[in-house]
Amino acid sequence: MTDTSQVRINGQRLWDSLMKMAQIGATDKGGCNRQALTDLDKQGRDLFVKWCEDAGCSVSVDEMGNIFARRPGNTPELPAVLTGSHLDTQPTGGKFDGVYGVLAGLEVVRALNDAGIATEAPLEVAVWTNEEGARFSPAMIGSGVWAGEFDLDYAYARADKEGKTFGNELARIGYKGEAPAKPRPLAAAFEVHIEQGPILEAEEKQIGVLSGVQGMNWYDLTLIGQPCHAGPSPMEIRRDPFMGLHKILDQLYKLAAEHGPWARATFGDIRVEPGSRNTVPEKLVLAVDLRHPDQQVLNSMDQRFREIAATVAEETGLEHDIRDEWRSPAVAFDKNCVEAVRTSVADLGYSNKEMVSGAGHDSVYISRVAPTSMIFVPCEKGLSHNEAENAEPKDLEAGANVLLHAMLKMAG
Amino acid sequence: MTDTSQVRINGQRLWDSLMKMAQIGATDKGGCNRQALTDLDKQGRDLFVKWCEDAGCSVSVDEMGNIFARRPGNTPELPAVLTGSHLDTQPTGGKFDGVYGVLAGLEVVRALNDAGIATEAPLEVAVWTNEEGARFSPAMIGSGVWAGEFDLDYAYARADKEGKTFGNELARIGYKGEAPAKPRPLAAAFEVHIEQGPILEAEEKQIGVLSGVQGMNWYDLTLIGQPCHAGPSPMEIRRDPFMGLHKILDQLYKLAAEHGPWARATFGDIRVEPGSRNTVPEKLVLAVDLRHPDQQVLNSMDQRFREIAATVAEETGLEHDIRDEWRSPAVAFDKNCVEAVRTSVADLGYSNKEMVSGAGHDSVYISRVAPTSMIFVPCEKGLSHNEAENAEPKDLEAGANVLLHAMLKMAG
Repeated sequence: MTDTSQVRINGQRLWDSLMKMAQIGATDKGGCNRQALTDLDKQGRDLFVKWCEDAGCSVSVDEMGNIFARRPGNTPELPAVLTGSHLDTQPTGGKFDGVYGVLAGLEVVRALNDAGIATEAPLEVAVWTNEEGARFSPAMIGSGVWAGEFDLDYAYARADKEGKTFGNELARIGYKGEAPAKPRPLAAAFEVHIEQGPILEAEEKQIGVLSGVQGMNWYDLTLIGQPCHAGPSPMEIRRDPFMGLHKILDQLYKLAAEHGPWARATFGDIRVEPGSRNTVPEKLVLAVDLRHPDQQVLNSMDQRFREIAATVAEETGLEHDIRDEWRSPAVAFDKNCVEAVRTSVADLGYSNKEMVSGAGHDSVYISRVAPTSMIFVPCEKGLSHNEAENAEPKDLEAGANVLLHAMLKMAG
Repeated sequence: MTDTSQVRINGQRLWDSLMKMAQIGATDKGGCNRQALTDLDKQGRDLFVKWCEDAGCSVSVDEMGNIFARRPGNTPELPAVLTGSHLDTQPTGGKFDGVYGVLAGLEVVRALNDAGIATEAPLEVAVWTNEEGARFSPAMIGSGVWAGEFDLDYAYARADKEGKTFGNELARIGYKGEAPAKPRPLAAAFEVHIEQGPILEAEEKQIGVLSGVQGMNWYDLTLIGQPCHAGPSPMEIRRDPFMGLHKILDQLYKLAAEHGPWARATFGDIRVEPGSRNTVPEKLVLAVDLRHPDQQVLNSMDQRFREIAATVAEETGLEHDIRDEWRSPAVAFDKNCVEAVRTSVADLGYSNKEMVSGAGHDSVYISRVAPTSMIFVPCEKGLSHNEAENAEPKDLEAGANVLLHAMLKMAG
């Protein structure tokens, strides 16, 4: 049996790949705008596929555009050990969110090639389509369909702000594959990712060993009032959606503080109708995102949100509606996979912290159909979904080394 | 000298004209969407021009698209007595705002024709372009250029949300005339309008005798924070524009209440960047509209608004900017014109109230270059800038009769 304990990632090559990929959709402020199923997404996918083929992998694409690059094992019939993440970005995204997990997987393959190591089980590196949810809501729809959370037809019908559908755009960029978007038996699935939060950096830890992912609820809150002229209508008879909005925002920020430090309340988007400067709006639609790692606490936040909205709407004479856009329950990762990460970190001697993810990831869905866990590395000031997103080459290398050894442990 | 005291408006014909015009851009909810310089605006203008020509008027159009329909006087060299308003509407506007003032003017001409009455001075009925400011900001730009408030080039360069310019759209609908958009000597200018507020209806008065118009300030308030991921970023380190927004809204509503019952604070539009559901926004831009009939009070509200925005931005770690979009100082109307309205109301025996307008009108600009005043009639529940806008035929007829006799007094 080969001694694999000394094999390591080529950190410089990993960094070079990240910087090369970041040129596709590069923004003036040093970030990346490579949204799902755009021409730039296609360019990024094409580059990844070429790199994988150069590394000896066979590449398949499923009907959701998910890409699987497979490195054969000695026993081809064994379930594969998979890693993967996403190549799409936010409109003002960074160079590492998602991309790092994909290219770290590629670097695992390259490192094993360089060292001449064959595994018993095959290895696979996956690219999941539209993880961000920025262009097509909901997020993580590629891994979601694959794992059975969403129907294929539902995914194909999702439309961006211009009305272009997921299905048409997927076909347009040539990534509507033939393989069914359905799970195959997997020995294990790992995902390495930047933390997208400030904790590892603040505590000076190099690796986060993830035990799960926080639960999150997405809503559209609609407030409906009565449009009227900005001048003559006395303030006290108005039914003005902004009068309700500011009270609801105030109370939801207080709700998050009550359940601090882990609760989150975020308002990423707002629409107004008719949107005329001198008319009290008829309607406001606010995107609400509530999160907590403890599902029971999240459920109580959900309840309070509904009470707050109803009470404020009543007080301010507004109609209101809460549409449940998406829910992702809190996730506990597979004990064996978490242990494989934990012992790899210990073997490699990196400083580390056991933690829960504050962000959703493709691994949330993968964990429903395969033993799964995740690895975090620090990012600068915890910034993500931001063009200034940054990470240290040595931390990215460390995270990829942990991935490499966790995959080796599970692939034999 | 002809006795003109018995001449009256044909109320049924006025109502029929209003209903006919309301078919152009009619909405499902019974309102009107006939925004400035659209194809529908052109249809409305064409209909008005035809009606005026049928009534024996000569029609001219100036380089701002303002339309002037002239009924000759016995002494053509005398300065004309003008009335007018606008045909454009809000996106979810009503059937009376503006249109009533234009068609009441037409009905004055028709009533004098029917009665065979000639005036010494010529009469003119004007349609002012883009009063609403809904498609092209600022409002009242047609009368504004005419009265010297804005430059012609500035007006032509104003763009709608799709980037189409005022100048191009004006030419496209065929209403870019040759006459200079500059004031000529006028004996008087009147404008009859629905109140767009609840006061006359509540006090059961049929006519409002206007002494002036409240001052109003329009601003764009920009709040800039730091975009970050909705999940992992702790609430206490966020720089979230919504955290500033809700405090500013709260304090501005309180400011309006402090200066009640006449102060107004309205937020008609809001834009968000990047507008992604799971990213704390980088930027919010809020349209702010502050009004008060006393210019000194409005000035103090302006001052407090700047202090509130600066203090909240400081407290919440945001950058902020206040752009002055437009200012319209409080206006006092011409004493002789107000008196002509007052005595006409008394002669006709209508119940009435002396008041100040809460809304901006073309008469604000006209009053800078000509003796001017306004007449109000009640509208249902004070609703305007709303598809449910409504008014009683008898009140519309009464307002047009007041207009008729005020114009006769000034035209001799």
